[in-house]
Amino acid sequence: MDARAIIAGLRQGEQPDAEQLNWFAQGLADGRVSDAQAGAFAMAVCLQGLKTDARSLLTRAMRDTGDVLTWGELDGPVLDKHSTGGVGDCVSLLLAPALAECGAYVPMISGRGLGHTGGTLDKLEAIPGVSTQVDEARLRRILQDVGCAIVGATSQIAPADKRLYAIRDVTGTVESIDLITASILSKKLAASPDVLVLDVKVGSGAFMKSLSDARALAKSLADTANAAGCKTSAFISDMSQPLAASLGNALEVREVMQALTSGQDNRLVEITCALGGALLADGGLAENSNAGAAQIAAAIRDGRAAERFARMIAALGGPADFLQRWEGILPVAPVQQAVFAGETGYIASIDGEALGLAVVSLGGGRQVEEDHIDPSVGLSGLLPLGAVVTPEVPLAVVHAADTVSAEAAALAVRRALTIGAQPPVLAPLVHERIA
Amino acid sequence: MDARAIIAGLRQGEQPDAEQLNWFAQGLADGRVSDAQAGAFAMAVCLQGLKTDARSLLTRAMRDTGDVLTWGELDGPVLDKHSTGGVGDCVSLLLAPALAECGAYVPMISGRGLGHTGGTLDKLEAIPGVSTQVDEARLRRILQDVGCAIVGATSQIAPADKRLYAIRDVTGTVESIDLITASILSKKLAASPDVLVLDVKVGSGAFMKSLSDARALAKSLADTANAAGCKTSAFISDMSQPLAASLGNALEVREVMQALTSGQDNRLVEITCALGGALLADGGLAENSNAGAAQIAAAIRDGRAAERFARMIAALGGPADFLQRWEGILPVAPVQQAVFAGETGYIASIDGEALGLAVVSLGGGRQVEEDHIDPSVGLSGLLPLGAVVTPEVPLAVVHAADTVSAEAAALAVRRALTIGAQPPVLAPLVHERIA
Repeated sequence: MDARAIIAGLRQGEQPDAEQLNWFAQGLADGRVSDAQAGAFAMAVCLQGLKTDARSLLTRAMRDTGDVLTWGELDGPVLDKHSTGGVGDCVSLLLAPALAECGAYVPMISGRGLGHTGGTLDKLEAIPGVSTQVDEARLRRILQDVGCAIVGATSQIAPADKRLYAIRDVTGTVESIDLITASILSKKLAASPDVLVLDVKVGSGAFMKSLSDARALAKSLADTANAAGCKTSAFISDMSQPLAASLGNALEVREVMQALTSGQDNRLVEITCALGGALLADGGLAENSNAGAAQIAAAIRDGRAAERFARMIAALGGPADFLQRWEGILPVAPVQQAVFAGETGYIASIDGEALGLAVVSLGGGRQVEEDHIDPSVGLSGLLPLGAVVTPEVPLAVVHAADTVSAEAAALAVRRALTIGAQPPVLAPLVHERIA
Repeated sequence: MDARAIIAGLRQGEQPDAEQLNWFAQGLADGRVSDAQAGAFAMAVCLQGLKTDARSLLTRAMRDTGDVLTWGELDGPVLDKHSTGGVGDCVSLLLAPALAECGAYVPMISGRGLGHTGGTLDKLEAIPGVSTQVDEARLRRILQDVGCAIVGATSQIAPADKRLYAIRDVTGTVESIDLITASILSKKLAASPDVLVLDVKVGSGAFMKSLSDARALAKSLADTANAAGCKTSAFISDMSQPLAASLGNALEVREVMQALTSGQDNRLVEITCALGGALLADGGLAENSNAGAAQIAAAIRDGRAAERFARMIAALGGPADFLQRWEGILPVAPVQQAVFAGETGYIASIDGEALGLAVVSLGGGRQVEEDHIDPSVGLSGLLPLGAVVTPEVPLAVVHAADTVSAEAAALAVRRALTIGAQPPVLAPLVHERIA
């Protein structure tokens, strides 16, 4: 085996076989494949494409470069969700405890924010004391005790992906459905869920801007995961506006706690129920998706999911009384500044990516991996698409560390929203489901 | 400027502009472009291709990352030749002194052997005392005194190419006409010849195995060099068999000395005259190519080129009396073993690449760049295509360091030749010339 021959074959339009892909993935993990070879491989995959078989083989080969967890000790189905990322997407924080409340186990290995999208781990760690870096033994203990654990990947999970992801980032080879599929699923399948649901976001705040791109990615992800023996379906859901009215780590946790404790429905709860319903049905815990969605909705509405969430927070090192005191516990930014439209009309479009970048500028996200995050900053009270705007109604409130950054963010937020004379046509929250 | 954006543009089918290519070439030379980015760039060029303009721009950008020599002090045209490489191709050693004898200056920056093809510098250095690594001042002095100097490139010549070449070698991206063109010409144009002739080899012993590939490369090279202001034509010449009856460093120098001193014509002299004739005509030193070829032939036939060659050898540190004593000076291998056909017929085909690799196995070439070379080993007396073979006539003589390697090489040589009942149709030595 030789990296050069594998790459040259790809260049000439050959599909690599299992032995070649296993060797290459192992070489990514152990360094036998050089940076130059990894860059050339990524570009060759971008331009020549992998067929379904090779894409599955690459995914499994990358998964198998690290630990693959098994769950023999658990007495219920292991369920997991993955979202392709967007702004204000804090679904995992609602979904994991709600699923656990319905009898599932949810070992949810999550990521951190980079660029305009936030990261689930950063949101959780906005709660004082919480640390999501736990070892495997502790993950198993939390899962047994609480039923759900949202944690970071150890370096033993798919190390080939860690290397290839960093290479793709600097070589302009991120936008390949084959490589995105292998990257996402090599990590997700390492946690060996029985059932997986994928939430592929489409719209201004998402990675995929068009429905056809989102559909291709959803199909690739679902096909590959199913081929690897994990029962998987994919939703294509709307990200033409943020999912919640808040953006920023502590502010999104507030949004989650309101949803878990107020009994009120909103877009965040609605997508959580849809995704959870599919998981419960596919995992044998509900008759069908609709019944499953009703079970999730009930767990949220009557406060059981909130209690389960608080138990998880305590198990991850957070305060024991988070459910009672969350409003006082979550950090608050020193400066709040309302953003006004200065005109009358309807909110016609929202540039979600621009809003996400405004939060990064406030210090609430990362431009590069090493950036430190200020959990308290962000936006709240963001008006949704179609809302009526008058000069004196705030479009959103900026939460900032100082007045200078607040001013700059307020300007960016104002620019990210367009005000029109007519209400816009709203996209459905769920575009389609691919089984 | 940012490498990622340039690479991503290429991936999406955009042609990079001058500013981008200058930045990228400079980044290759100074390390701002990472290995991963260089690998991805090479693969993107392989698969998306460069148009004529971008190819020229890349070539000049790579040339300009290092020194570009100028020759104001010389009172004649500066001529140069480049061959795309093959087995037994020792044309440069005849051509440079013959051109100098006809009034030209020939600063010929040459390379070393790698894989199945030999390198001009390795051949010269088979002569005891010769060192081809000279600094620019010494190159200028030799050129003034002798008229020709075959020397190695300094690290100041096209450093971007040095880096990209090493990257292409390990990433399966060698076979790109765009990248081959930029690599060859960034170095050749750094020596600022007034006129350049390219000898593109085609056949079993060459890099290009088909006439159409050779033609595409010849056209790309000639167009790019002419666009850079260097008067250039290209020959496509036959490499369906080695150019000389000997392969191996000292053995090829013997072949050269025989051609320079015997007054006898052969394929080696014939192609030297054709290439030299074109150069003399384009350089204004001959009425036309045929007249130029006659001038080269005369310089070789009457021994003037031999004397000039010996002066160059002395100037490069070799013996002062090489012309008189070359037969005794050149190293001789301890073991000689004849290879017999064991049957009767005609030599129907010769796998030149296999012969070249047999010489590498004997220690006469390099598998990797660091390999040490034994100048004495190789093959001599190789019968040409169409020669009549009987069981007792040797096909060639193997020159080896020991009997074990001699046996293995003899077997490889036997396998590289096929004996047929009919004489083969011979290709013309020169397929075509592209002006």
